[in-house]
This record gives sequence, C-alpha cells and structure tokens, in this order.
Amino acid sequence: MKLEVVTIGTELLLGQIIDTNAAELGRALAAAGAEVVRRSSVADRPEAIRAAVAEALERTGFVITTGGLGPTRDDMTKREVAALLGKTLELDAAVLRSLEERFRRLGRPMPAVNRTQAEVPAGATVLPNPRGTAPGLWVEDTRGRVVVMLPGVPSEMRGLLAEEVLPRLAARTSGAVVRSRTVRTTGIAESALAERVGAIEESIAPLTLAYLPSVEGVDLRVTAWGLRPDEADRSLTETTAQLRERAGEHWYGGDGADLAAVVLDQLRARQARLVVAESCTGGVLSARITAVPGASKVFIGGVVAYDNIVKSGTLDVPPELLDQYGAVSEPVVRAMAEGVQRQFAVDAALAITGVAGPTGGTADKPVGTVWFVARYGTEARALKRIFPGDRNEIRARSAQAALDLLRRLLADKP
Amino acid sequence: MKLEVVTIGTELLLGQIIDTNAAELGRALAAAGAEVVRRSSVADRPEAIRAAVAEALERTGFVITTGGLGPTRDDMTKREVAALLGKTLELDAAVLRSLEERFRRLGRPMPAVNRTQAEVPAGATVLPNPRGTAPGLWVEDTRGRVVVMLPGVPSEMRGLLAEEVLPRLAARTSGAVVRSRTVRTTGIAESALAERVGAIEESIAPLTLAYLPSVEGVDLRVTAWGLRPDEADRSLTETTAQLRERAGEHWYGGDGADLAAVVLDQLRARQARLVVAESCTGGVLSARITAVPGASKVFIGGVVAYDNIVKSGTLDVPPELLDQYGAVSEPVVRAMAEGVQRQFAVDAALAITGVAGPTGGTADKPVGTVWFVARYGTEARALKRIFPGDRNEIRARSAQAALDLLRRLLADKP
Repeated sequence: MKLEVVTIGTELLLGQIIDTNAAELGRALAAAGAEVVRRSSVADRPEAIRAAVAEALERTGFVITTGGLGPTRDDMTKREVAALLGKTLELDAAVLRSLEERFRRLGRPMPAVNRTQAEVPAGATVLPNPRGTAPGLWVEDTRGRVVVMLPGVPSEMRGLLAEEVLPRLAARTSGAVVRSRTVRTTGIAESALAERVGAIEESIAPLTLAYLPSVEGVDLRVTAWGLRPDEADRSLTETTAQLRERAGEHWYGGDGADLAAVVLDQLRARQARLVVAESCTGGVLSARITAVPGASKVFIGGVVAYDNIVKSGTLDVPPELLDQYGAVSEPVVRAMAEGVQRQFAVDAALAITGVAGPTGGTADKPVGTVWFVARYGTEARALKRIFPGDRNEIRARSAQAALDLLRRLLADKP
Repeated sequence: MKLEVVTIGTELLLGQIIDTNAAELGRALAAAGAEVVRRSSVADRPEAIRAAVAEALERTGFVITTGGLGPTRDDMTKREVAALLGKTLELDAAVLRSLEERFRRLGRPMPAVNRTQAEVPAGATVLPNPRGTAPGLWVEDTRGRVVVMLPGVPSEMRGLLAEEVLPRLAARTSGAVVRSRTVRTTGIAESALAERVGAIEESIAPLTLAYLPSVEGVDLRVTAWGLRPDEADRSLTETTAQLRERAGEHWYGGDGADLAAVVLDQLRARQARLVVAESCTGGVLSARITAVPGASKVFIGGVVAYDNIVKSGTLDVPPELLDQYGAVSEPVVRAMAEGVQRQFAVDAALAITGVAGPTGGTADKPVGTVWFVARYGTEARALKRIFPGDRNEIRARSAQAALDLLRRLLADKP
C-alpha cells in the first residue's frame, strides 16, 4: 500500500519548527506495511493546501495530513480538504459535548474559538483525541479515496496514529511490508566504513543499503521493499549479520540501539554503578544517560564541573594540575574521573573536558579538542579527539565518544 | 522570488532521520527574500527523484535539493538531475585534485568510490565544499531554470548555503522579502493566549499570525510576505509590540530567544552566579544552560542528584525529609536548592525533582509531577506542576519551567 503525507504549517516552510511528525509518520507507517512515497509540506494558505492534497491524492489515492486543525484562524486544513472532496462542514454534537466536557474537567470555560473544532466534513469518521481539543478526521470520497487529517501537536498526532489510524490501515494492506534494519557503528568515518563493507549492494538486492552519518556515528540501514513479512525478516537478518561482521568492533547495536542504553546494560550485567564528571558537555552526557528509562538502576548521578572551582572543590582535582596543564588536558581529565569515582564510591566513571567553542580555542587546543577518561575499577582509558562541527555538534559527539570509550573498555573485560 | 526544496533520502521517508536541513533551508532562504512554496521529500529511487525535481521545477523554475551526493551507491541525485536537464556527467579535474588533496591532508589514501564525487553535469558551477567530499552544484538549463544540489550532511549543507548559494540568490531577488518575527511566551496555554490576544488577524493584514505550541511554551509568529525590507520591518515591529503587550508577564523574548540565555543575561547584569541541582531532569537543565555560548561567565556547574544517595550525600538533604515526604516533594526540593546554593556559595540556584516516567508514578504523584525551587539570595519560590507528555517531553518542559521560575523571580526584583 502506497500513500503520501502532507504536513501543513507556514512555520514548517519557514523552518521555524522542525517537522518531527513527518519522521514519526514515516516510521510507523513503514512498520505497518504502508510505504510513504512522497512527503510534501505547504504553508497555511488555502490554495497551497488544496493543491498539495489534490496532487498527492491523484498519485496514490491515500493521503495523511498533519496540522491546521487547531482553534485559531491559521488553521484551515479541514475546510480545504472538505471542499476538495465536495463535502460540507457540519457541527458534530458528540465532538462538541466532548470539548465542553474537557474544559469542564480543567475547570475553565470553553473559549468560543474552540467551537469551530467541533465542525467536521459531512460523513467523516471522527477519530477521538483524548490528548487535545482537535479530533482526527478520516474522510473518504465517492471514488474510495481517503484523506486522514491529524493534528500537528506531536503527542496528539502520535496517539491518534497508534490508536485510530494504524488499526484501520492494517485492514487495508496486502500483507507485503517495507521493513528496515540498522547496523549502528561509531568511531569510524563513512568512507572507511564503506571500504570495509565493500561492494555488497548487488549481492543483497532487492534489499537496499544506505549509509547514514550523524553525530552518533554512521548507521548502515538495510531496507526490504514490498516483501512478505517472513521473507523480509529472513533476508534482513542475513544481511545485517554480514554487515555487523564487517563493521567489527565499531558495531554497537541494531535498530533503535542507544549507546547510553548499551553501556547501562553492560554495567547492569556486572551490577556496577556509574557516575560522570563533565565539563564542556555541561550536562549533555548525563542527559543522554538519564533519557534511558530505568537509568536510575545504574546511574547514580554526577557533577557538572563547568567552572574550575567545581573541578578542584567538588572533584578534588589538584589546583596545580589545572595551573600546569590547563583544564583541557590528560592529567586533569584523569583526576576528574578518579575524583568523581572516589567521591561516590562506585565501580565505573566517565569524565570529559574540552573546548566546545565557539571561543576558547588556541593553536595547541583548537575548538573541538576534547579529552575523555573511562574508568572501571582501577582500570582507566584516556582518549583525545578533535571533533569538527559547531558547539552543539561537538558536545553531542563528545557524549557519544565518552560512552563508546566505556563500551570498549567493558567489552574487553568480559 | 519563489522556489521549492526537494530533500532526498529513503531514510527521510522512512522516518529514520529527521529532516533538519529542510527547516534550516527554509529559515535562511526566507531571510534572503526567497519564499519556499513547497517542500518535498523522496526516497533514493531514480524515478522518484526525477519526478519530484521535474514537478518542482515546472512550478517555480528554481529548485534546491539536499542529499544523494555522497560516494556510495545510494547517492544518485547528480545523475538524475543531469539527465532531467539533458546534461552529461563529466570528470572535473579541479574537483578531483581537491579531493585527492583532502585525503592527503588527512594522511589517508583516497578510496576509489570517492572518485565519482568529482563527476559534475556539463556546464555546472561547482560550489566548493571545504567541510566534506561532495561539492555543491549549480546547474542551469537552456530555459534559465536552476537546480542547486547540496549535500545532505547538515554542517556541509549549511556552509555551502551561506557561502555559495545565498550570495548568488541575492543577485536574483526583486528586493521584496519574507520576514517573520516571534513573540515567545511560556507558562500559558494556547487557547488562553489566543483569548488574550483576541481577534487581531484582520487589523494586522497583510501580515499573518500563527500560534506555535511546543514544550517551551507558545510562540506567536508574525510574518510579512513580499514587502520591501523597510515596510516589512516597520509593520513587524508594530505588531510584535502589540502582541508582546497582550502576552504580558508570559512574554520572555523575541526571535531565537532562548529562556536559558535570558536568565543568564538577567544574572550577568547582577554579577550573580548560578548552580543547579537536578533529579528527574538528570542533566537536561544543565545542558540547556551550557548550550548557550559564554554560559561559563555565569554558570558554575551543578549536581545531577539522580540517586537519593547524592541528594543526601552531596546536597545535604536530611535523610528524614526523604523518608517522610519522598524525593518528589516540596521539602526535598527546597532542601536541594539550599544545599547546592550553600555548597557552591553562589547567589542563585535552581532545583528540580519529579517523576519523568514511564514508571514511578503513584495516585498522589502521577507521572509528570515535578517540583521546582528557584533561589536568589535568601528568597525562594517553589512551584509544582503536572506535565503531560512522555519522559522526554516532561524533562524538556521541566527545564523550561525551572528557568521560567527564576526569570519571574528576578524580574520581580529589579
């Protein structure tokens, strides 16, 4: 089954917000066997919305839109889609009641503008939205073509997709699916990885392979198109096993693997606990780790030693090391890791200090210079990297590199 | 000047990566007076790429593509665009030399696959890319229609756009611009804000207004379309001043304002320094603060007190408070803020403790329950909120709410 996605909002085209809904829809629909063949974004302009939905409908007969269902005047998706499909808008008593009920629960009067949210195209199926005021709408025309309208607020879109749209789609798909699997690598450049992998493309056809570099490393993404689920799974398993072998020690996981979760699992298996001391990353490493649900079983906490006062005061880094070598140096990062490990009396520790920029670089230590130490018990590994990119990229790459240093240390101590 | 953007990559449609390039292009192009009227994304499939570029070119005569210029086999943008415009691909000696030079500098042999990156459509202008191996390409056909191809790696795309594409576009635009300004608010819901703002749309025409809710609050975005720069600026200044007044105490800044930077500025003006103690946010607040360049002038650091051991050990939260009230409680968050402020002997402190989920919620303290304290000198304000959303949303909303609590406290003490 093929379909198109149209995301609606002037802010998307002006780049004022990033279209995360589009990615989320792509993932969920592919997993359900529906292939998004094109995605378009248009502004909150009646003619632009109507043209984009009409063309997408012409190509595939099935369109999902996001955005433009809110209570304010820049919300015009419903009106345009209704007009395109030749439907009128009618007040839906049940939707109105549930809106009024929602405001009553919140103990607030319902603003008059919200009343327009109870209007639906004649004959539409209303998809109840417990997370917000705009219900989703599933509209079918006389030729069997479908437009599904979802709100633009990500959590509302996500809920409606999972609870209302995917179950209805399942009934329409042929059984063939589009499935992908990822082999995640880090610590190796794209072209070096490509040389290791070699010319594998012909031998894996009809599967396709893509190289996806990011601040976390390079992902190898293999996709099976339009196969039955069991065939798709069999060929993906075979191909990802080959790729994993070729990637060697740079491999750290498959689909959705998060290096922070991988390291937490390694530590959990050893009943070890982790603390961190971070300077230039200023909380990014801790935030990565605590983004993993259940991190509290392993991660105790840490110190953001942004100022040298914290490095010497809380982490016991000898002031003479800071004076002699500077905050971005191997002796200091070693002392930070030892200090935080000692203070919290745990098995594993990570420390980071570096120059994230944009200022603070020198000829010796240019912006992007970062020192890392991973400790497990009394064993320590230090690493220096010079990263490209801006402040945020350097911070994200640093958190990933720190986790990878600990991953490799633990992997070598089975 | 109107144009379209086509972003290319199977991973975009499958939702495996989020299309940040599209947003960045939209922002930069609008600022330069070029309006992106539609954005499309297609997979790495020859016929899909060719159709999308052809249709976009038909509608506007000017298309910018991203992606598909790398050295691997899934990179096919150049070939399809050349074919569409009736051009052959030719080896460019200068590009080849610069590629070889790049690998020499890195002290690595050039992989054979990179050689294809030196092929360019006949007559194309090569846009040098010092950040990577794929140069940008500017190709014009005999009818004066233009396709600009940029690499998909965000930092490379960004560099080529600023250094090569925007200066060339400036020579082509009519002088009319599309400009937007934002009035950023936080701590108020979209519909309540809409009631405060009222029916302002008619009176500001031809400017348009959009409400953009996110985890940071609700932005009011005003856009002037196709005006001359001075007219656009005048009407935007007037309208945003009105909106700011109507938003009242919920307003915290304009375009690109980051609440962390706003608070750092407030503190810098008082020569005050800040520390934080965070539990459920686990580093997210510190990371927000240290994402601001120059944060080190104000922000000393902090403690990620994820485990209660750290709350009592490092922050001196009395264990009996933890026992009696639980970690997510007003007495504990007050003690955390006092403890971290005392330990680092600074003027300002923030503390957060809450239930980010997905587990750990109770009837009394459901997932999303978060306590905050902001301290400045001896004055403290506490706040409890119950946030909707998933773990990451709750953490992001919590960091924003903590910063806002301190902003309001400082604003009330001029």
